[in-house]
Amino acid sequence: MYSYSSLEALFEPTSIAIIGATADQDDPGTIVASNLLASGYKGKIFPVNAEGEEVLGIKAFSSISEIPRFTDLAVICLSPAEVLGAVEMLCELPVRAAIVTSSGFGETGREGYILEQRLAKIAKKTGMIILGPNCLGLMNPTLSLNASLSADYTKQGNIAFFSQSGALCNTALDWANSEGVGFSKFISLGNKAVLSEATMLRYLSNDPDTKVVVGYCETLEDGQDFLRVAYDATCKKPLILLRAGGTSAGARAASAHSGALTGTTSAYNAAFRQAGVLQAVDIEDMFNLAHAFSCQPLPKGGSVAIVTNSGGPGIIAADMCEKGSLTVSRPSNATIDKMKGFLKPYAALYNPIDMIGDATSETYAKTLRAVIEDDAFDSVLVILTPAANIVAEVEKVAADILVAAMDSSKPIVTCFMGGHSVAGARNLLRDGGIPCYDFPEAAVRSLDAMTRCYRWQNKDWPIEVCFRRDISKAQSIVANSRRIGLMELVELDAQHLASAYELPVPETVLARTSNQAAKAAKRIGYPVVLKVASPQISRKEELGLVVTDLNTPQELRRAFLEITSRAARRCKDAYITGCLVQAMGPKDSHEVIISFRRDAQFGPLIRFSLGGIHADMLGDVSSRLAPLALNDAQEMIREIAAYPILRGARSGAAIDLGALEDILLMVSQMASDLPEIQEAEFSPIIVGPDGAVVANMRMTIG
Amino acid sequence: MYSYSSLEALFEPTSIAIIGATADQDDPGTIVASNLLASGYKGKIFPVNAEGEEVLGIKAFSSISEIPRFTDLAVICLSPAEVLGAVEMLCELPVRAAIVTSSGFGETGREGYILEQRLAKIAKKTGMIILGPNCLGLMNPTLSLNASLSADYTKQGNIAFFSQSGALCNTALDWANSEGVGFSKFISLGNKAVLSEATMLRYLSNDPDTKVVVGYCETLEDGQDFLRVAYDATCKKPLILLRAGGTSAGARAASAHSGALTGTTSAYNAAFRQAGVLQAVDIEDMFNLAHAFSCQPLPKGGSVAIVTNSGGPGIIAADMCEKGSLTVSRPSNATIDKMKGFLKPYAALYNPIDMIGDATSETYAKTLRAVIEDDAFDSVLVILTPAANIVAEVEKVAADILVAAMDSSKPIVTCFMGGHSVAGARNLLRDGGIPCYDFPEAAVRSLDAMTRCYRWQNKDWPIEVCFRRDISKAQSIVANSRRIGLMELVELDAQHLASAYELPVPETVLARTSNQAAKAAKRIGYPVVLKVASPQISRKEELGLVVTDLNTPQELRRAFLEITSRAARRCKDAYITGCLVQAMGPKDSHEVIISFRRDAQFGPLIRFSLGGIHADMLGDVSSRLAPLALNDAQEMIREIAAYPILRGARSGAAIDLGALEDILLMVSQMASDLPEIQEAEFSPIIVGPDGAVVANMRMTIG
Repeated sequence: MYSYSSLEALFEPTSIAIIGATADQDDPGTIVASNLLASGYKGKIFPVNAEGEEVLGIKAFSSISEIPRFTDLAVICLSPAEVLGAVEMLCELPVRAAIVTSSGFGETGREGYILEQRLAKIAKKTGMIILGPNCLGLMNPTLSLNASLSADYTKQGNIAFFSQSGALCNTALDWANSEGVGFSKFISLGNKAVLSEATMLRYLSNDPDTKVVVGYCETLEDGQDFLRVAYDATCKKPLILLRAGGTSAGARAASAHSGALTGTTSAYNAAFRQAGVLQAVDIEDMFNLAHAFSCQPLPKGGSVAIVTNSGGPGIIAADMCEKGSLTVSRPSNATIDKMKGFLKPYAALYNPIDMIGDATSETYAKTLRAVIEDDAFDSVLVILTPAANIVAEVEKVAADILVAAMDSSKPIVTCFMGGHSVAGARNLLRDGGIPCYDFPEAAVRSLDAMTRCYRWQNKDWPIEVCFRRDISKAQSIVANSRRIGLMELVELDAQHLASAYELPVPETVLARTSNQAAKAAKRIGYPVVLKVASPQISRKEELGLVVTDLNTPQELRRAFLEITSRAARRCKDAYITGCLVQAMGPKDSHEVIISFRRDAQFGPLIRFSLGGIHADMLGDVSSRLAPLALNDAQEMIREIAAYPILRGARSGAAIDLGALEDILLMVSQMASDLPEIQEAEFSPIIVGPDGAVVANMRMTIG
Repeated sequence: MYSYSSLEALFEPTSIAIIGATADQDDPGTIVASNLLASGYKGKIFPVNAEGEEVLGIKAFSSISEIPRFTDLAVICLSPAEVLGAVEMLCELPVRAAIVTSSGFGETGREGYILEQRLAKIAKKTGMIILGPNCLGLMNPTLSLNASLSADYTKQGNIAFFSQSGALCNTALDWANSEGVGFSKFISLGNKAVLSEATMLRYLSNDPDTKVVVGYCETLEDGQDFLRVAYDATCKKPLILLRAGGTSAGARAASAHSGALTGTTSAYNAAFRQAGVLQAVDIEDMFNLAHAFSCQPLPKGGSVAIVTNSGGPGIIAADMCEKGSLTVSRPSNATIDKMKGFLKPYAALYNPIDMIGDATSETYAKTLRAVIEDDAFDSVLVILTPAANIVAEVEKVAADILVAAMDSSKPIVTCFMGGHSVAGARNLLRDGGIPCYDFPEAAVRSLDAMTRCYRWQNKDWPIEVCFRRDISKAQSIVANSRRIGLMELVELDAQHLASAYELPVPETVLARTSNQAAKAAKRIGYPVVLKVASPQISRKEELGLVVTDLNTPQELRRAFLEITSRAARRCKDAYITGCLVQAMGPKDSHEVIISFRRDAQFGPLIRFSLGGIHADMLGDVSSRLAPLALNDAQEMIREIAAYPILRGARSGAAIDLGALEDILLMVSQMASDLPEIQEAEFSPIIVGPDGAVVANMRMTIG
């Protein structure tokens, strides 16, 4: 955990040492020095090279030990073998933060990886914050600071951009400079040996110059930390991420690229969703969203007015709205009456508002004002195609939009389709802070993301729930099983552990003989379930070692013999303790599955689905990372496609949803309390109108 | 059905009359005349206006009756009220084809719609082909022909473009002119009163100047005709369509736009899929695909080599490949050895081939040659980011790619990321016929579409199946039910109709008393099913009027009383004939549903799913338009997510897939034979390892 002040030293340094800047203009250190000078940096610059040669007219030092103590930042541009020594010397001075641009670390294989680990260790020991290695550096236009290898600089803006990939950094600079967009901070993260996304986000979320944070990532090593920091950040400002490496081919490539293992895509998706991260669908989308968030207010709801002078693009926009989370509502009657006053009789008034090819700049301005004033709409999309009637007035339309936007608290985005005839108007709009896209699809995607962001920032507070549980009992069950070398808890132990978490388990008795079984069934009450009991057999149902709905002692005895002899035949090496006699679950019931598995990056990922084929075959599963809040549990149950079944669709009875929510929360608690449990599956959970019972469970210990 | 020669008159006219060209340069007719002259059209031009005024230096006629007989084409630019009279006079001459640019028809409401219908009627009676009304006209650069209202012209190319929306036409021209792309034919369809997509496709699929057909559509009125023509066309050349109006908001907007009703999205998707149409995801994608298909050969498989000088974009490309139908395979050992000879030791050799930032134009050229020569790959994607090492050589890389492409029968697409530093290289590539995209996602989407197109063109021929059936018996059953005023066939009639199609129905006997029922059950053999028989009751199962698995005469009698009295209570107005006694379906069985419904545009849409919640709630349904070929039926069964269940996953028995295929084909035959049946549902169909039985069915007649 790094202090905010050392992050300030990195991002807002008043003095910078450049280790490896020489008289040779092609040396990376000299390039950084030259970029710093070119950007107009006002702080002190201390070049360092062994010869003590002057660098671009600045006096240099011949050793790191000579530079002033408490210099804020050092940019290290040395060969990888020299980096560690340099960092150690810098720590001694001390210098508070460093950027290592040098490559030749984790990205090159085993030796480089060991070097990188050693670098991380020094940083941890001394508390020095380090950006990189294998990165381009960073820019902070507020301070006229370009501490990077990139000669392309950026103007000041309110977008903070970061990227693990240097190529995406260059692409972002290109995009920003051609669109006239500026950055508040620009950060090339490189190999992230020390400074990771989470630490950086902690800084950016408090940075007053940053309105929106945008980044490209492949792996997030500190998943749980990231989740916490991102949640806090997104409550304050939008966080847009493009993640690559989600498919197996992509993950393979990402692993070759940075040497890191990626987590599962479902864990990433759950993490991004729970942290309120807006995922960009591709590079272009990432930039489009960045621009829209940077210059427009958030809409206060999902109703979009589409104002257009041609039908086709209006239809495309309406389609896109409906595919997302937006609605294309009808204008109020007052607005419709108003529009009838100045639109042609053939115009479509009911949204998309198609003013048809006859539209002039005047009808655009009047219609725009009418929909801005109409409470039926939360945001406005203006589409223009260069029809003969409007082509001479396109820039007038743009100017009118800029004027209307000044009085409007609703976001306005535009799509001016066409080439040279609308190019001037597009620039006018973009320079005036109104996003103008080439095609309607991108415009709608931006409004959609802005609406989701508004909803996220105005969501209900999560309701944290903490259940009473007997942790020490649970821990001793796990410890005992571990001691005798079991990788999986035997069923009765698993049941006792579940009971320690007050999970509803059916009354269960171990019977060594069919007589004992009949006695137990009499006490429990018929009908009962009978299962084999054996520490070696876990997938009992698949092996035909479970019989349900036994109604009489005769049936029970027969089943006892059948199961035990079948088990002996099919599982020759298994030690068979006897059979478990269990109470049946509730009537009018459904079977559901709740499970968790520890993701390498993000910790326990909890899954919910109906039983049977719904989980593995149909993939109708909802997932969240632990710990769950009450609303997480409620959403998980409601977002599966088969949810109506649980509500009693198809003439079944509505089940006790509260009982399921409780089980989800207790399982989340268990996953958080007991890191020794690698995986757990509660399946089936039998749930009816009056409660639920966990009829079977399996837990694997690590 | 229009003859090819009248389509030739429209697209390749040797003489053109322009009705409504005047001395006023702002009149639409004069604009068309001016555009024709500007494009350098070599044929004859006959302006017509009432005053007989000279038009742009060309002698004009004062009446349509004066223009030469058998003039190929007339462009009509009159007020809507004058159009019909003009068309009638033109038909008399005759003139062989016409374009009506005038608006004021179906798009304006009821009166315009009636005018448009009258226009269509004249065309049908006289056999004149008419483009429009409410369109921009067309261009045929092979003849230097711009017979349109658009002063923006296009250079000659091999892409035929058509659009229902004039705005999209303008957008396409803008795109083409800024990318240096040309068209073979450029067609603004307008309201499609006479000339529709299907007729036009018939011409374009035989047009030697057209390599790829690209279009934007909202509605396809002649769905079944379109399906046939598109199927023939896509076997010869790619057909790329962007369809708008797929969501309910979009459909509402489309209906306001053109006055036409759109069909269901599932019918459109089925139609496009069965006809081999490539659906573009958005406007930009449509243009990107158009360009790639126009200049590159099709890949002979789905294995892509990704050659890059930076990791991030390579990962993004690999992700996109895997999300689509492409694979990122490993290079052959020979290629790996070859590459080790000239790539840096830190390069990633296993695809994406990441030559890292050290790559030079030389390594690009060598790597490209190696992967082109490697049989492991069917296509190549070259990614370049302007790293310091390559920035001076970017155009050299582009030139080398052009040289390599000359010797390659594999498609090559490229993605040069960045702004000004790669702009020259991009133009070089595009001018040389290599698509160059700004971002890797678009490049992969193009390769994916090209691969799907290759697979489509090289698919197995469909196996057409025709079953023996008793059509006259089927027709008389439908006619009888109609005569007595039933909207839905009674169950026994439906069964007899199914039998006429040799559908496997269980033995069924109508019993008026419980004694008759017991006698029938004895003959059929226990266990049996009992259902109420009544012409007024169709959803028997939901009303609890079906009892299955009756094993004894006692059970049967009790069920008979229960069902008939319950029916009398619950359906007070229903006439209860008695009960149907039916043989039970096979054991170890699954329930599936097959149904069809007539789509307004495309005719019978056949659906397949598992029974229960799978169809309506989970939406795990496959759909195809009738008539089905054998491979359609096979695909329908195999493409649902729950298919593994039918294969015997989860310890069930594998069912008789052939029996299901037969039922699908027979239902398709029935839907095609009997247009009176509006909807039919065969549910449940009980299918086991040794065959299937249609246990229940409902048929609605129109």
